[in-house]
Amino acid sequence: MSIEQSNSGVVPQQDQIRGQETIPAAVAVELAQIRKEIAELRAQVLEDRAALIVFSGDLDRSLAAFVIATGAAAAGLKTTIFFTFWGISIIKKKNRKKNRASVSKRDLMQKMFSMMTPSSSKALGVSKMNYFGIGAAMLRAMMKKQQISSLEELIALARELGVQMIGCTMSMDIMGIDQDELFDGIELGGVTAFVEEASRARVFLLI
Amino acid sequence: MSIEQSNSGVVPQQDQIRGQETIPAAVAVELAQIRKEIAELRAQVLEDRAALIVFSGDLDRSLAAFVIATGAAAAGLKTTIFFTFWGISIIKKKNRKKNRASVSKRDLMQKMFSMMTPSSSKALGVSKMNYFGIGAAMLRAMMKKQQISSLEELIALARELGVQMIGCTMSMDIMGIDQDELFDGIELGGVTAFVEEASRARVFLLI
Amino acid sequence: MSIEQSNSGVVPQQDQIRGQETIPAAVAVELAQIRKEIAELRAQVLEDRAALIVFSGDLDRSLAAFVIATGAAAAGLKTTIFFTFWGISIIKKKNRKKNRASVSKRDLMQKMFSMMTPSSSKALGVSKMNYFGIGAAMLRAMMKKQQISSLEELIALARELGVQMIGCTMSMDIMGIDQDELFDGIELGGVTAFVEEASRARVFLLI
Repeated sequence: MSIEQSNSGVVPQQDQIRGQETIPAAVAVELAQIRKEIAELRAQVLEDRAALIVFSGDLDRSLAAFVIATGAAAAGLKTTIFFTFWGISIIKKKNRKKNRASVSKRDLMQKMFSMMTPSSSKALGVSKMNYFGIGAAMLRAMMKKQQISSLEELIALARELGVQMIGCTMSMDIMGIDQDELFDGIELGGVTAFVEEASRARVFLLI
Repeated sequence: MSIEQSNSGVVPQQDQIRGQETIPAAVAVELAQIRKEIAELRAQVLEDRAALIVFSGDLDRSLAAFVIATGAAAAGLKTTIFFTFWGISIIKKKNRKKNRASVSKRDLMQKMFSMMTPSSSKALGVSKMNYFGIGAAMLRAMMKKQQISSLEELIALARELGVQMIGCTMSMDIMGIDQDELFDGIELGGVTAFVEEASRARVFLLI
Repeated sequence: MSIEQSNSGVVPQQDQIRGQETIPAAVAVELAQIRKEIAELRAQVLEDRAALIVFSGDLDRSLAAFVIATGAAAAGLKTTIFFTFWGISIIKKKNRKKNRASVSKRDLMQKMFSMMTPSSSKALGVSKMNYFGIGAAMLRAMMKKQQISSLEELIALARELGVQMIGCTMSMDIMGIDQDELFDGIELGGVTAFVEEASRARVFLLI
């Protein structure tokens, strides 16, 4: 700071000396080298972004994911959530009637898998003590009593804050899930592309 | 390196030229611009800190969290652990008699939740093959035989190394847990503030 | 960009002025200070590396770990996976006959633990709905049908891409596992050293 101030003090003085305003060749070489090093550093510095891979499809872990994601977005980070594997359940629409065509394309294992996995965010269990959904219902009731946002409210808040949400194409292929079964506005993408992007983000978490 | 050495070689030479010690205006402009760019970069560079969110309350995952946290602290990183959700159990005092007043304030669901969750670090199960605590007891015995620090010893080591520990206020509200039920020296805080802080840390993990 | 171009414009002009090619002392002081600051920044900037701690030994989470690791390696990051706790099962050789000597050295608890944990990557269960291995078999079949690489193929791909794999010595001591029970080419190391290394990596995830 003090050095910059002394610089500014020097500038007007120097301006009075006529014919000295050009940069000496040796200095120009040094400055060009410094600028190159700064550009290299800038390319290495992480960006103001947050990237979350949501692998888990548990209610409790989903809540943690969205609390972190909305927190990161509120802190000014451009935030992206990549839903993969069990996490795909979180972004499934509740109303499945529209999707009959895509369901009929599924093979037997995909149909079994679909029956065994939660149909939407409303049907997620908790990772511990779920007891066939009692744990999840209890958690939701306890959160409501404390006036804490529900998962669905947090998802809506995330959208409002511009959090980008991507469904993992590989997981969807494995499970036989089509894009029209997911919430509107969910993009599709591959893990590798996401990891490459995320590797430049200041925050990169897996849940 | 070689450029800096040539610089040093130039300086005494130059010192002998009287009246030339001021900085040419054009150079000062360049230097001011470079300093601005360096300041911007410095604001972007991550800090020598480690931030851990401990969401899990399993003995095995808690051990991993504290091994990583004490490792990070030993490596010179200012380390903070944020305990949320099931992780709150890790920092609960064993002796609960003092807390009768706060317990009586709990509603029925909070009391049930309290009964169903571990009463302290000593009561944590393992994430796999717990078999009502046999797995956890086995793990503790196997660690003791290998003279590996227990969870409680790791928690004490973390304190000695200055690891900051924060309890998640939202989780505590949901579960009806008061600060006096936690170990002494545990701070309280919100997820959003923690995420904002953690987004500047070199290490940011969720367990 | 435009500033650098103006620099280049200045250099040849300046070259014509004889006896002005040295660097003024005051400028040299500024440049040395800037170089010091750039060197400090460079030491702070994270490296083009990815570090993964694989704590989980579930088939689904192992798949996620290797998809991320191979993705990071393909994106040009030097990638290291640290296998700890349940994750050790992923890198165990299927053929255990060679290891009879080391098995006999195990105590009773280590033998029990060994019987209860998966014998190799082929025997891993899934983290949800495993139903004594049916879930894992179903997942493998569904992946094969979609022509998605199996875990073993991903492990081979990771090796081809130069992903470094390290087994956690502490976990191996606890469980009584010897290096000759692990895949060839697996290095051994401690958590603390790994965390210190990983804290300089652009990507650091725990699975």
